[in-house]
Amino acid sequence: MRRLRDVGEHAWLARLLARLARRRRRDARLLVGPGDDAAVVRGAARLVLTTDTLVDRVHFRRGWLGPAALGRRAFAVNASDVAAMGAVPRWALLALEAPARMPVAELDALALGFAGAAERAGARLVGGNVARGPHLALTVALVGEAPGRVVTRAGARAGDAVYVTGVLGASGAARRAGRLPDPPRRTGAGVALARVASAMIDVSDGLVQDLTHVCRASGLGATVEIERLPVAASSRRALGARAAAFAATAGEDYELLVAVPAARERALQALAPRLGCRLTRIGRMTRGRPRVTVVDARGRRVRLARGGFDHFRR
Amino acid sequence: MRRLRDVGEHAWLARLLARLARRRRRDARLLVGPGDDAAVVRGAARLVLTTDTLVDRVHFRRGWLGPAALGRRAFAVNASDVAAMGAVPRWALLALEAPARMPVAELDALALGFAGAAERAGARLVGGNVARGPHLALTVALVGEAPGRVVTRAGARAGDAVYVTGVLGASGAARRAGRLPDPPRRTGAGVALARVASAMIDVSDGLVQDLTHVCRASGLGATVEIERLPVAASSRRALGARAAAFAATAGEDYELLVAVPAARERALQALAPRLGCRLTRIGRMTRGRPRVTVVDARGRRVRLARGGFDHFRR
Repeated sequence: MRRLRDVGEHAWLARLLARLARRRRRDARLLVGPGDDAAVVRGAARLVLTTDTLVDRVHFRRGWLGPAALGRRAFAVNASDVAAMGAVPRWALLALEAPARMPVAELDALALGFAGAAERAGARLVGGNVARGPHLALTVALVGEAPGRVVTRAGARAGDAVYVTGVLGASGAARRAGRLPDPPRRTGAGVALARVASAMIDVSDGLVQDLTHVCRASGLGATVEIERLPVAASSRRALGARAAAFAATAGEDYELLVAVPAARERALQALAPRLGCRLTRIGRMTRGRPRVTVVDARGRRVRLARGGFDHFRR
Repeated sequence: MRRLRDVGEHAWLARLLARLARRRRRDARLLVGPGDDAAVVRGAARLVLTTDTLVDRVHFRRGWLGPAALGRRAFAVNASDVAAMGAVPRWALLALEAPARMPVAELDALALGFAGAAERAGARLVGGNVARGPHLALTVALVGEAPGRVVTRAGARAGDAVYVTGVLGASGAARRAGRLPDPPRRTGAGVALARVASAMIDVSDGLVQDLTHVCRASGLGATVEIERLPVAASSRRALGARAAAFAATAGEDYELLVAVPAARERALQALAPRLGCRLTRIGRMTRGRPRVTVVDARGRRVRLARGGFDHFRR
């Protein structure tokens, strides 16, 4: 088995770039592709810029997913942030840290998995870097373009309804079982929802925590009815009665959480069938301190054991 | 001393963003700043995209430079790649991996050092990420804009003269002494040289290796006269007679290496006084296999012990 230290950084990169070049369609907006000091692309009116990192033994374990799925995941978690602005991903950079003992075939699968996920989403891997490090880590920078309205976390108003796409708790349940499934693709849903949303965020740290980010940015509170949460069947099977509370905080759902003003509810209903996923009303934005109150069907407050994910506090 | 684990990811980020907001001038092209899912900026006709990583105990040691200098360095090594395309840096993303034991004051100094370096170069820190990791690592993505001609590694022709900005070996000599000085700023020089260069690259892996990249991309060989190299005084002092050979391969100079056709030599001489740094003719591009031949003043081949930097082969 050939490892990175047998091949070297430059030879590995040269071979990867040749493989990528062979399978790629022409892109008239790509002026200088990977392999130079920097890529050069034609711009757009408004650019959306984000970066996110996956670290071995922090965000994933090697046994939980194969290298191609890891590459896809690195793209997907960044595409989720771009979707949450109402934008589409366009240009991607992939910076890898890898130990010298890493098998070349694994790093190939990872990079090609990333590039394939980018291409299926209408984006392109245009550059990157590989550095020696004590462990595997993938840092992605993604440049997106906004075809229409851009939505931040800050625009919600009191009384806006809160909706979430897809289901919650599936990724959390899989993680408990030692697996990490591919995140859902919500690019199309994000662009459509941006037409009606007053605020939007993706659910990465956990529904309650991410809705708290919207509360802080919008200067509002929020109420979530726990019995309305679209809990994933896998989470119900694994956790039974505790599944809804788990789904409220488990995180890594990469679904979209949106606030929608009453005046745009009809427009939302019109576009909902074309989102390609479920859309569930789970609560509303309220006046008051920037925090999320979780209630049951009778309006009684539900206390959750866990808030959400923070890298440095457990 | 407060450490990251005492403060938490979200509280640290919130405080950093508040500090950055206080000291910042308005930028009409920044539509959504840091703190949301992604930043939103007004685009430009041509964008230059690059990423690079600095890993603790691979690219630097904590004793070699303070945290503010490390932040500045992370910006500078990326700005160097942008300059080598003939572009100016505009939007920056900073993804950090840090251990939970890291002092908050150090991470603050690092992020503010980065942001300050970006601002002095006309760029802006618009987003980032912080993740727990076993060691400190900084991955930067930099979006630049090309005011004029873009220059790649691939355009050199046989007979073109090869020039290098500034001096070589200063960083290598400092590293041997346990220091890492700030890289030179060559943004203005890069934009100016792009008007006359047929190919350009920044010297990061070492002059010979980086010129070999130009050779490969342009399908040419190159000859470098070792006695013409602008060897840093610090390197001469430390290495004496071996200083020129050291400067040819030491790397991390972050100077610009350019090929210039004979027809544009007069234009080059006209702009040289305004580059803000030395410019030295060190060799020429030749027909033949893509490799660099180093020769002495009498044209005899000089063999170098070391090729240049490769992350996985030593």
